[in-house]
Formats: sequence, C-alpha cells, structure tokens
Amino acid sequence: MAKQKKTPRPKAQTPKGFRDYFGAEVTRRAAMLEAIARIYHHYGFDALDSSAVETVEALGKFLPDVERPNAGVFAWQEDEGEKPGDWLALRYDLTAPLARVYAQHKEDLPTPYRRYAMGPVWRNEKPGPGRFRQFYQCDADTIGAPSVAADAEICAMLADCLETVGIARGDYVVRVNNRKVLNGVLEVMGLEDQGQRDAVLRTIDKFDKVGAEGVRQLLGKGRLDASGAYIDGVGLGSAQAEPVIAFLTSKGADTAATLANLRAAVAGSQTGAEGVDELEEIAALVAAQGYGADRIEIDPSVVRGLGYYTGPVFEAELTFEILDEDGQKRQFGSVAGGGRYDDLVKRFTGQAVPATGVSIGVDRLLAALAARGQGAAEAAAAGPVVVTVMDRARMADYQAMVGELRAAGIRAEVYLGNPKNFGNQLKYADKRGSPVAIIEGADEQAAGVVQIKDLVLGARIAESATLEEWKERPSQFEVPRDQMVAKVREILAGSAS
Amino acid sequence: MAKQKKTPRPKAQTPKGFRDYFGAEVTRRAAMLEAIARIYHHYGFDALDSSAVETVEALGKFLPDVERPNAGVFAWQEDEGEKPGDWLALRYDLTAPLARVYAQHKEDLPTPYRRYAMGPVWRNEKPGPGRFRQFYQCDADTIGAPSVAADAEICAMLADCLETVGIARGDYVVRVNNRKVLNGVLEVMGLEDQGQRDAVLRTIDKFDKVGAEGVRQLLGKGRLDASGAYIDGVGLGSAQAEPVIAFLTSKGADTAATLANLRAAVAGSQTGAEGVDELEEIAALVAAQGYGADRIEIDPSVVRGLGYYTGPVFEAELTFEILDEDGQKRQFGSVAGGGRYDDLVKRFTGQAVPATGVSIGVDRLLAALAARGQGAAEAAAAGPVVVTVMDRARMADYQAMVGELRAAGIRAEVYLGNPKNFGNQLKYADKRGSPVAIIEGADEQAAGVVQIKDLVLGARIAESATLEEWKERPSQFEVPRDQMVAKVREILAGSAS
Repeated sequence: MAKQKKTPRPKAQTPKGFRDYFGAEVTRRAAMLEAIARIYHHYGFDALDSSAVETVEALGKFLPDVERPNAGVFAWQEDEGEKPGDWLALRYDLTAPLARVYAQHKEDLPTPYRRYAMGPVWRNEKPGPGRFRQFYQCDADTIGAPSVAADAEICAMLADCLETVGIARGDYVVRVNNRKVLNGVLEVMGLEDQGQRDAVLRTIDKFDKVGAEGVRQLLGKGRLDASGAYIDGVGLGSAQAEPVIAFLTSKGADTAATLANLRAAVAGSQTGAEGVDELEEIAALVAAQGYGADRIEIDPSVVRGLGYYTGPVFEAELTFEILDEDGQKRQFGSVAGGGRYDDLVKRFTGQAVPATGVSIGVDRLLAALAARGQGAAEAAAAGPVVVTVMDRARMADYQAMVGELRAAGIRAEVYLGNPKNFGNQLKYADKRGSPVAIIEGADEQAAGVVQIKDLVLGARIAESATLEEWKERPSQFEVPRDQMVAKVREILAGSAS
Repeated sequence: MAKQKKTPRPKAQTPKGFRDYFGAEVTRRAAMLEAIARIYHHYGFDALDSSAVETVEALGKFLPDVERPNAGVFAWQEDEGEKPGDWLALRYDLTAPLARVYAQHKEDLPTPYRRYAMGPVWRNEKPGPGRFRQFYQCDADTIGAPSVAADAEICAMLADCLETVGIARGDYVVRVNNRKVLNGVLEVMGLEDQGQRDAVLRTIDKFDKVGAEGVRQLLGKGRLDASGAYIDGVGLGSAQAEPVIAFLTSKGADTAATLANLRAAVAGSQTGAEGVDELEEIAALVAAQGYGADRIEIDPSVVRGLGYYTGPVFEAELTFEILDEDGQKRQFGSVAGGGRYDDLVKRFTGQAVPATGVSIGVDRLLAALAARGQGAAEAAAAGPVVVTVMDRARMADYQAMVGELRAAGIRAEVYLGNPKNFGNQLKYADKRGSPVAIIEGADEQAAGVVQIKDLVLGARIAESATLEEWKERPSQFEVPRDQMVAKVREILAGSAS
C-alpha cells in the first residue's frame, strides 16, 4: 500500500507585519476611541463606517498600466469567471474612502458634511520594529465648508480630544501653519519653475531635522549630512533662499508678533496675505472660545504635510519628555495631524469641494499615556474574581457565587479547568491578574463560611514578609457565606485606592 | 500637437456586495457591541483583537493544489520579489483566528482561556439583497475547559447579552441540543457506513424546513419538494428511521420529560447517554443560577450546526413576530448560535483542545430591534443644535454660543456652509435632524436676545396647523441671550419625553 502523504501542520503565525492585541491593550484602545468619538459627536460630526474594501480605481494613487496594482496597498483581482474582474484593495487611510463616500452619496448628505470615522487601515509596506501593516486611525473631517471657521473648529476639537483621553493642559500644543503663506513665500522668491518649487517644498520638509542652517545649505549648494554623504542643494542664491528661512523662523513672542513677521515675509504676495489673514482669523476664533496660545498656536515651523495640504495645516504635539529606547530623554512629539485639502472629491466629480480634517494616531496616543504610566493602575486591577472549585459536584453552588458577585457589579468567574490540582487554580488566578480568590470546601460549607484570599495584598506580602508574617496569612479571611459579596467589595475598594 | 489622453474619472462606488454605514447605524451598532462586550468582560472573558489578515495556511479550509485559493475568502499573494510570497486572506470569521492565536500564544495565555472578540469579517460570496460581503461578528469562546459548565456559562451569558441590548425576557429563548445525543441515535440505528451517516446528518439539517414527516420521507424513499422536484431519499427502512424522528420530536412538557424522551431514544448507546447527561447537567447549572426554561431550554429540534459541532449546540431565537417583506407575520428567528468544537486547535498543535463558544449576529439583532421600533426615538433626537450665521463677521460670537451649549452637555454646531441664503441654513438643520436652531441677527444682538426655533415642535405644527396657528409661530421663542442654554435644555427635555 502506498504511504499516505501527510499534510504538514499549518504554522500558527500572524502574517509578517501583523500582530494581535490582548486584554487591556484592546479595552484601553476601545475606551480611547469611544471618548474621542463622544467629542466628535458632541461637535456635530456624524459617524461613518465605510467599507474596508474599496476598488483600486476609487482609492486612486495607482498607475493604470501596472499589471498588479499592489504598491502600498493590499490588492487582489475579483474572480468573475470569464471577464477580468475589478481590482479591489484594503483602504490605506480613512480620507480616500471619505472622498468616495461623499461623491457617491452627496445627494443624501447634508452640506457641509461633518463626519467622523475610526477603524483599522492597512499599508503594504515593509514591516519594521514597532511598524505594523494594520493600525487604527480616528478621523474627523468637514466637507463643503470653505470658511476657515471649519479649520478653527477642528483645532479646538482636537485640543478637547487630547484632554478627554488624559493629556493634561500644558502637556500638548496644537500648532497651526498655512500652505498659502508658503505659496506666498515662493511667489515672493520669484520661483516659477515647478521643479524648483517642488525641490524647495521637499527641503522645507527637512526643517524638523536639519534646522534653519541646514535648510539654508540645502536651498543653496548642498550639505554634508550626519552619515558623511553630501546632499546636493537646490542651487538658489543665498538672498533668494532668505524668504524661506524668514518664513520658517517667523515665530514671535506672541501670536501678534508671529503674524507681523509672516506679513513681512510675504509682503507683495496676494496669496501670502490671504494665508496670513486666515491664520489671524483662526487665532481669533479659537481665542474667542477660550483656547489660548498655550493650547493652539500659530507656528510657521510646522512643515509636516505642508506639501500635501492646500490651506491651513495643523499638528498636535505632546510636549513632555519621555525616555526613548536608548534611555535618552526626548519630546514625545506628534500624535495627530491634519489640514485643508480641496482636490480629493474633484477626482470623482470634476468639481472642487473644500474639505478639512484631522487624523488622530490612536496607537501613538496610547503609547504616550503608557510612557507616563497612565492607565497602568486600571490594567493591574482588571482581572476577575476567581471562585475556585473544591468539589466538582458542587459546580452549581460555585456558579451561584459568581452570579451574586456579578449582580453586585463585580467581574467574576468560576474556575473551569481541571480542578484536581488546587495549586493550578491559584496559578490561574495569578495569571489572570485576579484581585481575589474565593474558596469553599466541605469544611467551609458545613460551617456556612467561605475563605477569601486577597491576592493583591498577598503578592505584596510575598514580596516583603518574613516567614512568621507569611504564616499568619493575613491576606486570607474567613467570612460567613452571606457576607461574601460585601467583603469582596471591601477588598476591591481597598486595593483600588 | 498630439491630443492629450484624458484619464477617465474614477467611479465613486463601493465594490459589489459592500456598503457604507451612516450616523445612527454606526452609533447604534457601536453601542450594542459595547454593551455585549461589557457582559462578556463581566463574566471574566478577556478582549482579543486579532489581525484582520491571516495566512491562508492558518485559516485552513483550502486545497493546497489550487493555484489561487480564494474560494470563499478574499486572498492575495505577498509580493516578495524573487521567491513566491505567502498567500494572505481576510478572516472569514473570528473562530479560525482564535485557534491560530491560541496555538501561537498558548504559553502566555491562561488555561482555560476565555476570550471575546468583535469586528468585521469578510466572505467572498455572491452578494444578494441584504447579504453583504463584510459584516460584524461578536464572539465569546472558552478554550481548554472540558466541563459542560463552560457551555452552561455561555448560555447564561448569551441570555444576559440579549436582555442587555433590549430584548425583553419572554421575547427570546436560548435552545440547547447536543451532538452526542444524535451520535447515540445513529449508533442505536446501527448506521456504520460513514456515507449514510453523513446523509442522515444532512437530512436532519432540513428538519427546520420540512418537519418530521418530511424528514421521515427523506430518510426513506424520498420526497417531492415544493418546487415539484423529487428529492431522492437516504433509503432507510421506516423502522430504522424512527429513532431519528424520536430524537427530533422528543421535546416534552418540561425539561425532565424531554430528558426522559431523549434517554429512551438513545437507550443502549454509551455516547448517547453521555450526551443526555451533559444536557441534564447544563439544565441544572443554569436553573441553579435562576435561568428557567422560559430563557434557556433543552430542545432536540435545534439542528443548525449539529453537523459541525462535537458536543452541546446552542441557538438564540427571538420569539416575537415581525412582518416580513411580503407583509406576512413570521417569527424573527435566530440571532446567535454556537457550540462545542474540539478540533480547531489540533490542526496546529496535533493536540485536541476542548473549546466552546458563541457568535452573536449583531446586524440581525439590530434589525430585530429596528423591526420593533426600538432605538428609533434616540435616532430621531440625535441631531445637533444648529447655531445659524446671520452675520459672517460675527463667527466668533456664534462659536462662543456652541461652546456654551457643548459645555452644558448639548450636542451643538455652528453652520459652516455659505450663510447667504438663510433658507439653506434651516434646510440643513432639517437634514441633520436638528431639534433646535438658534438665530441671532443684528436686531437680536442689539436687544441682547436670541431667537430659538423648536424644530421638532415646528415639524409637528407644520403637519397639522392651520394658517393662523402657523403664523403665530409658537415654535419660535425669543429669550435673553444669557438664558439661551437653559431654554434649549428645556426644549430638549420636552421633545425627548
């Protein structure tokens, strides 16, 4: 008889660049998304849950002649029998789908359309440490509102969101810049050539890293970078480059001074003046609502996304310091960004529709809170009370106990593994992070009592107690059966404080 | 000059079989998922958010020799340059990923592992009316607990979940059956041939539709179905088929009677007796926790999934009647199902691991609540208060108004479209389902008052008022500016009642 071919066992692994999230990682993210959604909703934004799968055509960004359009996205072709099917792909952000949704449903949607959305997005990129190919975004956008009042509203809402999830006032700042001011600068410089303009934009994007002097060099002849490589410059004369530097470094002592510096930097440009007016209007609107420059400030050094957006640009930064992987102190940095973009809907309809929005990086925000130790306390106390099983035949009694505990609002469960080895039950409670274990054997039942083990206190004692103290087991109490719930509640209240 | 080739505009459409969800559709589902998660968590289940993308190998169910393994799932091949990449796919349920997660992380997970998960799953199926290729599941499973106490716990939890989301006691029942009892029946029948056993299983799955007499015919010679087609039978003698009928119709006046009937039906089979013992134990456990047969009942006529599961099987059914598309009354039917399965983890590790779980069909449950008119009231009152713009230059004042309203816990926004046409502002408020609009023009400002328009009352009046009543405009009030928030709150309290 032929030897039967054995199918090898499948590997139990996530695909490269994907991961799973467990327990408190999930509930903390869900709580954060819910808190942000509540703010968005309160501001009049409506929820949208668009399909995770889009046609590649609707997502755009892909060359029509590429056989397999999967650069950057996860894409596949529909199998429709004879004729070639559509190419579909997972969304890579929440903005491209919004443009599609608005173009598709605009007759039924109000104008302006304020919407919020949250959920996973997928990027087909090389994964790296801490870089995953699936992550969460949490966006709010306003479509069809040309006024910068819409931008101001989003900045104020962003500040509210950060405070709601636990970032204290003073620990963040929403910085606002404007692409139109930069366009004004380019106009003043007399840069007509699109290639040169693009090169200047790319250079400005490096301001974060190389500073004013670095940008000056890169706009001119070039620069030796930290790795020793020489980066060719744009080739502008030093006088011609000055307006860019003036723009980037125009932040003054207060908003009025900054705006005055910007006006000087774009003197003579209509577009530039318009951009400065917009920033002034945004500053006035948020100030009228009580958001001072300590929370929302005009800052021309914000360059991230300046090339992508068409008007105001905003970025939320956390200003406190954390220790990085190398133990070095550094500012935590950006956790949200956005701005005004006017061309996304036009792709579909041919008509430009003004739009502005923000995207909050929920995973980064969670990391920031974790780095400050916030949220750790709840996570530690989050395990269920475990009712142990001393006599398998009395399962119904143990179930009644967890029923009572749950009815009192206490997270509780009965041990459902093999109860033979009692040590395993306590190990299980430990692994679950249980604050309390309940024990009721035959003796206890006969006496009408239960044993209650305070596992949080027990762990503390185990760390520091002497043998004598340990033997006294002050972390275990015997209470009448009908006082079980009250005693557990008392212990939980104590360990939470 | 050659004519430039114009790229055609992309179509603004979801892919076939996908859809978007708006506003209350999203928030009601989110609220339902959150309510169910709270119950799961309360029972000691831990959250798991596994990757939406899995390797096809880990998902299983696919033939290794198929070039493109996309039957039933959305799959694509990783692009890894020279060597052929892994096939990846979107998860089609939450159970297959759980098996992979457990096999991958079992050293770090407690045993038993209780986990809950919720999120979209994707099926590459032919879309139809009301059938979508992306939908939500909401599951709870216990891995590593051989005792049927785990199954009983899930049945009780399922009942709690239904009541929490708004299904009244009496409007649902969780029915429980057991595959082992059925196996006992097949043993008693002396059916050794696997082909015949499978044919009997498939026939039993039709009991829902064809009833006892239909099953009797299909187990025998065959049956003329409603369409006029003749369906060949399994070919059993009528005496041989009787135990199956006895099993399916063994429901008695109470649990004890049902169990007695089942014991008779499987008399002589060890497996069958074990199955009846398990049902008896489940009934006793849930009864001890106060779940009577009006909520959780042993019902041998539950056949859905009986072929798939290996032990207890449960199904939650809504028992109230709704009107279907044809205006006919019918029972709403199943909204959740689950059972015990022991082989999923074995695929990865070679070791059988007991597991049991339930999946709640959130979209069906939402449809059920909608069919009863539940949740409609909140949806109607969910629009924001709209502060209209009478003078564009006074945007900061209007923003201050919405700021005050929000601070009082009231959802509010300023109109951000072009304010020129005031009628458009009210049309907008109408489209948003706004309960109230605020108006403050130059006259009002000078007098220190605002106009408050009760749009809910206004709509009611518009429906039924005479011209005289309409002219009196009793749905519009003038109040001092500093009483705006109080008056709005009063109107909202009135229209909610």
